[in-house]
Amino acid sequence: MASNFEPQWTEDAPVKGSFRSIFKWGAPDQFKHPNKRLFAMLKDVFQLTDDDFKKKQDEGHEAVVCKHPIKLDQKHIDWFIDVVGKNNVNTDDYSRVKYAYGKTLEEALNLRSGIVKNVPDAVIHPTCKADIKHIVEYCHTEKIPVTVYGGGSSVTLGLQCPRGGISLVMQTHMNRVISFNETNQTITVEAGMMGPEYERILNNAPDTLNGSRKYTGGHFPQSFEYSSVGGWIVTLGSGQQSSYYGDACDLVVSQEYVTPVGEIKTLDFPATATGPKVNDIMKGNEGTFGVLVHVTLKVFRYMPENSQSFAFIFPNWESAVNATREITQSEFGMPSVFRISDPEETDVGLKLYGIEGSVFDTLMRVRGFQPMQRCLLIGQADGERDFAINVKKKVKKVCSEHKAMYLTGYPVTQWSHGRYMDPYMREDLNDYGILIDTLESGVTWDRLHDLHQGVRAYIKGYPQTVCMTHASHFYSQGTNLYFIFIVKNKDIQSFIEFHRGVIKQIEQNGGSLSHHHGVGRLMGPLMEKHLGKSQMDVIRTLKKHFDPKNIMNPAGTMGLDEI
Amino acid sequence: MASNFEPQWTEDAPVKGSFRSIFKWGAPDQFKHPNKRLFAMLKDVFQLTDDDFKKKQDEGHEAVVCKHPIKLDQKHIDWFIDVVGKNNVNTDDYSRVKYAYGKTLEEALNLRSGIVKNVPDAVIHPTCKADIKHIVEYCHTEKIPVTVYGGGSSVTLGLQCPRGGISLVMQTHMNRVISFNETNQTITVEAGMMGPEYERILNNAPDTLNGSRKYTGGHFPQSFEYSSVGGWIVTLGSGQQSSYYGDACDLVVSQEYVTPVGEIKTLDFPATATGPKVNDIMKGNEGTFGVLVHVTLKVFRYMPENSQSFAFIFPNWESAVNATREITQSEFGMPSVFRISDPEETDVGLKLYGIEGSVFDTLMRVRGFQPMQRCLLIGQADGERDFAINVKKKVKKVCSEHKAMYLTGYPVTQWSHGRYMDPYMREDLNDYGILIDTLESGVTWDRLHDLHQGVRAYIKGYPQTVCMTHASHFYSQGTNLYFIFIVKNKDIQSFIEFHRGVIKQIEQNGGSLSHHHGVGRLMGPLMEKHLGKSQMDVIRTLKKHFDPKNIMNPAGTMGLDEI
Repeated sequence: MASNFEPQWTEDAPVKGSFRSIFKWGAPDQFKHPNKRLFAMLKDVFQLTDDDFKKKQDEGHEAVVCKHPIKLDQKHIDWFIDVVGKNNVNTDDYSRVKYAYGKTLEEALNLRSGIVKNVPDAVIHPTCKADIKHIVEYCHTEKIPVTVYGGGSSVTLGLQCPRGGISLVMQTHMNRVISFNETNQTITVEAGMMGPEYERILNNAPDTLNGSRKYTGGHFPQSFEYSSVGGWIVTLGSGQQSSYYGDACDLVVSQEYVTPVGEIKTLDFPATATGPKVNDIMKGNEGTFGVLVHVTLKVFRYMPENSQSFAFIFPNWESAVNATREITQSEFGMPSVFRISDPEETDVGLKLYGIEGSVFDTLMRVRGFQPMQRCLLIGQADGERDFAINVKKKVKKVCSEHKAMYLTGYPVTQWSHGRYMDPYMREDLNDYGILIDTLESGVTWDRLHDLHQGVRAYIKGYPQTVCMTHASHFYSQGTNLYFIFIVKNKDIQSFIEFHRGVIKQIEQNGGSLSHHHGVGRLMGPLMEKHLGKSQMDVIRTLKKHFDPKNIMNPAGTMGLDEI
Repeated sequence: MASNFEPQWTEDAPVKGSFRSIFKWGAPDQFKHPNKRLFAMLKDVFQLTDDDFKKKQDEGHEAVVCKHPIKLDQKHIDWFIDVVGKNNVNTDDYSRVKYAYGKTLEEALNLRSGIVKNVPDAVIHPTCKADIKHIVEYCHTEKIPVTVYGGGSSVTLGLQCPRGGISLVMQTHMNRVISFNETNQTITVEAGMMGPEYERILNNAPDTLNGSRKYTGGHFPQSFEYSSVGGWIVTLGSGQQSSYYGDACDLVVSQEYVTPVGEIKTLDFPATATGPKVNDIMKGNEGTFGVLVHVTLKVFRYMPENSQSFAFIFPNWESAVNATREITQSEFGMPSVFRISDPEETDVGLKLYGIEGSVFDTLMRVRGFQPMQRCLLIGQADGERDFAINVKKKVKKVCSEHKAMYLTGYPVTQWSHGRYMDPYMREDLNDYGILIDTLESGVTWDRLHDLHQGVRAYIKGYPQTVCMTHASHFYSQGTNLYFIFIVKNKDIQSFIEFHRGVIKQIEQNGGSLSHHHGVGRLMGPLMEKHLGKSQMDVIRTLKKHFDPKNIMNPAGTMGLDEI
């Protein structure tokens, strides 16, 4: 008999100054809780009872305390105060912890237990490019480590400061529009501008930019609300509509950096044949070459009225993969939102998006689409109206040829509605000792099944695990696989071992170490094995060129040195 | 009264072993002559009479003689013979000259006068990657300059060997398919494969590659017949259908190089977020980092039955530019062939493509499209059938909104028919002392008119010049401008001064130094001014990393050192 019990999911914003206020995902006062179906599933998988959801653990309500002494000389701190002003230099415990932590699960777990490490000595909020220039020059001269903090959504331990020094927070002031060029459809912004502000400005271009029409940036990562434009570029991010708009690297027209050896600004030509493109070389450096200060990006016409959404259910994973491959190679244009879920994710998704128990559910069962076999595809075509209509029409044709059933656009609306909200559930689960984390990888079509099966075998090899997989960024040569895994009751160390095991499986089964999360300190140790020595030597040479004293994001980032 | 005189354009293949056999464009026995209308125009512009076209000058029929002694020690030559065999090492005059020369006009003019410079000591035809590895290692140890020769179509003095050493000819043997991956829609080939062979293999994939369908490489530069796949990539080339298929750099999935410090192979993921992409860093290095041996490229479905061609005449250049900008930014997909000609090129084009004097010509005049104001657009949409139909439909709508008149697809057929043939006319003109050359540049929309007007003003500032301009590679941020200029009776040195003046004007008026011709030794001297020291320092650092002894394509290429 189904119980009506529902856990008392946390509904209060974290206590100010608490550890929880640092690790909680997203807006302090926003929440998304597991719905009843998901809750029932979790109890079932982990063999838990309602009683197991009556007492929360390690909630992190305690006030942040940082026992690591400030090692930076007061004279340096005074120098920073001279440059950016007293209000823009923090040395309090809370700031030092807050700006050393991203959203990696093990960071959250540590903070829940009050474990703090790898903090900067001081947190600096530069007010303009000139500030950054002075600071980087000074730190270069004085050999003070500089770690760049954009939006704070890193899931690769990318913001930690194992060697102390300063954390340079870009989002506080470095968040303005520098210029807008409507003729070229480009905008130049400071790198610390956050996703929602960037999109708000573009969507309202007639008011905000004196534009003749509305625009969109076309970049909507899951972390959209808490990531910065600069962060997208230096970590090679991808948005949920990347299959149409491109990955972050495709959106960059030119960049301006402050590096320890000086400023570097690339040119804004749409194409050139003037030797290796330094603009490309700088993308993805994760702050190890210098500080991205300004960036010029392509923008697109904002035409939401043209969006065409669609969803399909496939009899199995193979048919879903084959259909999406056919779609990417058929040359009728690409959908923007485009995502297929494997059987395990599909069943969870049907719960999450309100399909389970609906008329669609009945129809699926009648038509023989079986749980733990059937696979969900959701998508949306954008662009000019007839283009988008044709994309949807052709997608339907291909899906039908692959035995899929059309589910209308309803599941997309459901998904879209909460598109940035799913990560909010992490804290709820963690409160009851259930760990949920993700890893993702780029892969060619021919290695997709090996990667999927290899990683799943490893994860499901542990008793009582959920392993959901989707592909959500498509290319004619391949896609990505995004693994979401849920495990129960592991201590931090065993979780870390398990987690590193997943990364190894990804690498060994033909996936890239990262499709759009970057490298940070998480993938760093595997970089040389993955890329090979000759490629790593090139990156090291560039690192040495820009940062000969290794002050920029040092200690393990991208595997360039040791933690 | 129009004369019926027609010059005796050369119809014989060049004498074997002659200078002409080296500088003549294209197939020895193929010709395209100026038609009557073009001939009449040339006489008119240059105030020439039929008599001026009765005696050819400096035809270059003499046998090639190379007076530069071989400076390379015989022991080295013997070593090369040991590696690749006697037949694959040439030290004869003809080979040393042939493989030092591209198709730059001043090279042709020099060869017409029997002037030979910057030749290698020996020409080597490696048979496989292992040969190249041995040779590059040896040359690194012995400090022997190595210049890589792909298809031989360089127009930037890129193949010359000012420091002697060896010319490494890729097209002779390094022209095989390594592998074909139909699932990923990629092919891996040796870098010396020539354009037509590459396309032939793909178009006939069911026979040649055991493929399930036909493919295309989508890359059709003007030099298609005499350029190599590797050359496209290391010089950052663009094809005539690049607006749809992408530039050469967009087609590259992964590359394998032999450099003086070892081999480097990039991975074939469709996307990764594992730090700065070494695959991008290597593109456009023009052989200065090492020898590109294998390359994996995206291929596309070959669907010529879907092609939709169209042409329009615009009242003026501004309306043509505005319409194409609107097309690139409207998000209905891009045409593949897409080209607008300025008024001067339009009038020549109408002569060349048989429009002048046709019913279209009458219609244009009646409708008020005036010579030296009207501008021609030609294009073709490719891809899936309904996608292509929609592109054409929307292009028509935009063009109509910009006051253009539809000319059907006829001019495209005319253009397409001779798409690779126009350069064949160069020798005919040169035979009578008329010089024709081209330079091109990438440019953002907002600087297009400055660039066009600035360069035209400079060229037309010289008496009796033809200056035709088109844009033929489109992006939502801008396009390229391709300048074709015809001048009369300049000696080589004054032509070179004039030509360098055009390049300076391009740079000073907001254009990139090169859109798709690469840098070579022609743009080299302006690279630092153009890119700025900080970008050049990055390229120099990479150069030093891969080639610490500066043996690869040394002496001026990309401005990395002095000639």
